[in-house]
Amino acid sequence: MTDYSRYLSPMGRQLHESAIRRMGAVLAKADDLVSFAAGYPDATLFPWDAFREISHELLSSRDATVLQYGPTRGYAPLIEAIVGVLDGRAITATPDQVLITSGSQQGLDLIARVLVSPGDSVLVELPAYTGAISAFKNAGANLVGVRQDAGDGINLEDLDAVCLRERAAGRTVTLLYLVPNFQNPTGSLLSLEKRQRLLEWAERRDMLIVEDDPYGVLYFDDAASAREARPIRADDRHGRVIYLSTFSKTLAPGFRVGWMVAPASLAERFETAKQAVDLMSGAFDQRIVLEAVRRGLLGELAPRLRAQYQAKRIVMEQALRRACGDRLTWPAPKGGFFLWATLPDGCVDQALLDRAVEQRLIFVIGSAFYVDGSGHDKIRLSFSAPTLDRIEEGAKRLAAAMQPALAT
Amino acid sequence: MTDYSRYLSPMGRQLHESAIRRMGAVLAKADDLVSFAAGYPDATLFPWDAFREISHELLSSRDATVLQYGPTRGYAPLIEAIVGVLDGRAITATPDQVLITSGSQQGLDLIARVLVSPGDSVLVELPAYTGAISAFKNAGANLVGVRQDAGDGINLEDLDAVCLRERAAGRTVTLLYLVPNFQNPTGSLLSLEKRQRLLEWAERRDMLIVEDDPYGVLYFDDAASAREARPIRADDRHGRVIYLSTFSKTLAPGFRVGWMVAPASLAERFETAKQAVDLMSGAFDQRIVLEAVRRGLLGELAPRLRAQYQAKRIVMEQALRRACGDRLTWPAPKGGFFLWATLPDGCVDQALLDRAVEQRLIFVIGSAFYVDGSGHDKIRLSFSAPTLDRIEEGAKRLAAAMQPALAT
Repeated sequence: MTDYSRYLSPMGRQLHESAIRRMGAVLAKADDLVSFAAGYPDATLFPWDAFREISHELLSSRDATVLQYGPTRGYAPLIEAIVGVLDGRAITATPDQVLITSGSQQGLDLIARVLVSPGDSVLVELPAYTGAISAFKNAGANLVGVRQDAGDGINLEDLDAVCLRERAAGRTVTLLYLVPNFQNPTGSLLSLEKRQRLLEWAERRDMLIVEDDPYGVLYFDDAASAREARPIRADDRHGRVIYLSTFSKTLAPGFRVGWMVAPASLAERFETAKQAVDLMSGAFDQRIVLEAVRRGLLGELAPRLRAQYQAKRIVMEQALRRACGDRLTWPAPKGGFFLWATLPDGCVDQALLDRAVEQRLIFVIGSAFYVDGSGHDKIRLSFSAPTLDRIEEGAKRLAAAMQPALAT
Repeated sequence: MTDYSRYLSPMGRQLHESAIRRMGAVLAKADDLVSFAAGYPDATLFPWDAFREISHELLSSRDATVLQYGPTRGYAPLIEAIVGVLDGRAITATPDQVLITSGSQQGLDLIARVLVSPGDSVLVELPAYTGAISAFKNAGANLVGVRQDAGDGINLEDLDAVCLRERAAGRTVTLLYLVPNFQNPTGSLLSLEKRQRLLEWAERRDMLIVEDDPYGVLYFDDAASAREARPIRADDRHGRVIYLSTFSKTLAPGFRVGWMVAPASLAERFETAKQAVDLMSGAFDQRIVLEAVRRGLLGELAPRLRAQYQAKRIVMEQALRRACGDRLTWPAPKGGFFLWATLPDGCVDQALLDRAVEQRLIFVIGSAFYVDGSGHDKIRLSFSAPTLDRIEEGAKRLAAAMQPALAT
């Protein structure tokens, strides 16, 4: 028997593959590849020694709970510690509103499964994070894009128009997904004034906002401040926001520890869904992260991460300017991991990627981030993981890949 | 806003809560509780020192991949190592058939999502593992129970009759889920002859078999042998079996590392589904497990685990016999973590649990394992985690809880 397709469920047939994860598979195979593709943090910034000490102490303790099954909700002291982390972001939350997730991605999947019925419209930014697109699509959502303004995020007039248009067409619309801080892929920052207006809009239109905030603390000092990255959830007085964050960008992604904050009755639903999904997130991972938080590593590391990613961003900008001149343009990102570049006329994202792979360079095509089929004039270039040398080298390879398109 | 129920998807409304996980929440709250509830392995048997050494070496290496994002499929050398582990179980598999999962539970969830359409009938044993019941129910499955024979597992005549009856009623039926080795909750072992006949049946009826094998190596030397625990997948010549296993019972569950073996085209579908679920299983967890396998810990530990769990089983059987006399009966389990007890007439599982909680004892009610609403005369008693003293104490508390029911 070789044809298993007849066994697939509707979801199994329509699974949405991540363009980013696909690049990861290419990456694993090629030598001397420069990757501007995946948004990997810089592993040289991981607090390796602290993790080693913490692991040593936890495993020396022989405390059963370090390696045992534990509560689906998460290790209670870690939840308490996260309440403290949230407080530092001006968010007031109680433990019954917090759920530990296996990375933020799991939060997205749980939201999609628990809150999205097949055929529902879910509003996302144009462009939007591909992992969210996949999670919502796999739940059968009809994804509808909302325009962004240059530099300061989602356009509120378009948002309201799209919402009303979908409802007029008879669709159920209850969710808006967005990344207000240093958006993936654009690097843009939603203005504080828009955040307030979004909350009013959600109340007026009876909407829930899924606020995904992996990069909030990774602002560039030369472009933004902590004050400007204030989460929408901080001012949510009507229970309209489900907030997601993670330790993947501030400690290390290999631990798979993220969290969500939701109204308690919804958090309980997400917890019940998670029971059948993976029983619990990694116990050892949770304990290592907890100890890292307790030892103040988040606060200690943050300035170093901000400085290092800003330095890499500057190097990439300069290298691209030198290698590609003004044929490539991008809005200055205010934080995060990505440059969001517009290609010159006549240059198409997928064709450029095909040529770039010949040059041993990968990035993510812009169209992967658009739910409306557009974005073929964009590419996402991640500067977070490669060394400064590799960023220089990658810029040259990109210029070489762009050459034929510009010549014709 | 306090009522969020109107936002829930059909899945969000009908979420199936695990009776076992609910007991876990009770456990976390009470002092001096004896738990015969969750099937936790014995944490004193975890190879703590080896894990400490391995963690030390991995984190000293500063090898980025130890803490970085990695492929959704799993860390390639771990997949290779698992192919070797499978070979030791007489299973021939290639790496493209293997997917690392966040515990076996994630394998069940991926199977349910990718292969079950809402309304499909899925065949399960009476009784069946509750985590599988939850995963299939959350995908909208109609679960249909198949009778088991005393001691040697699923009844093949009933299986065929149920399958044909469901199809005659117009239902799609493509999946049978079962635990052939030391079943959860009954502890029974499917005979080798029945395994062969199951494969023939699957081919005849065009069915896929989901073979869940967490306990296969944990046979009791006084009751069974490795030969008798030969996986169904070992003799699957027609690609009818999806095999699940885990390191949770042989190394430690806190790492959340399991795996599935499926025909390559299905493995690719499960991988794509997993992309949007959690991107990847924990990188550090995978590396620790890989090193443990490489150092031969699985083979070293297995005899000790078998001896220890057998000893605990014997202690529980003796303690129950002393405390409860012949009012409680159970088939001798041949391996695994559980005694599956039949209550005396007039004793109902939930009422007994309520009284047991007053005695500071918990277990799992039998009816939680039955998809047909029966099983109220059964309880599952796990002997794997508690110490010998606590097993003795728990048996006394169980007898005390049973007393009023017997008196009336």
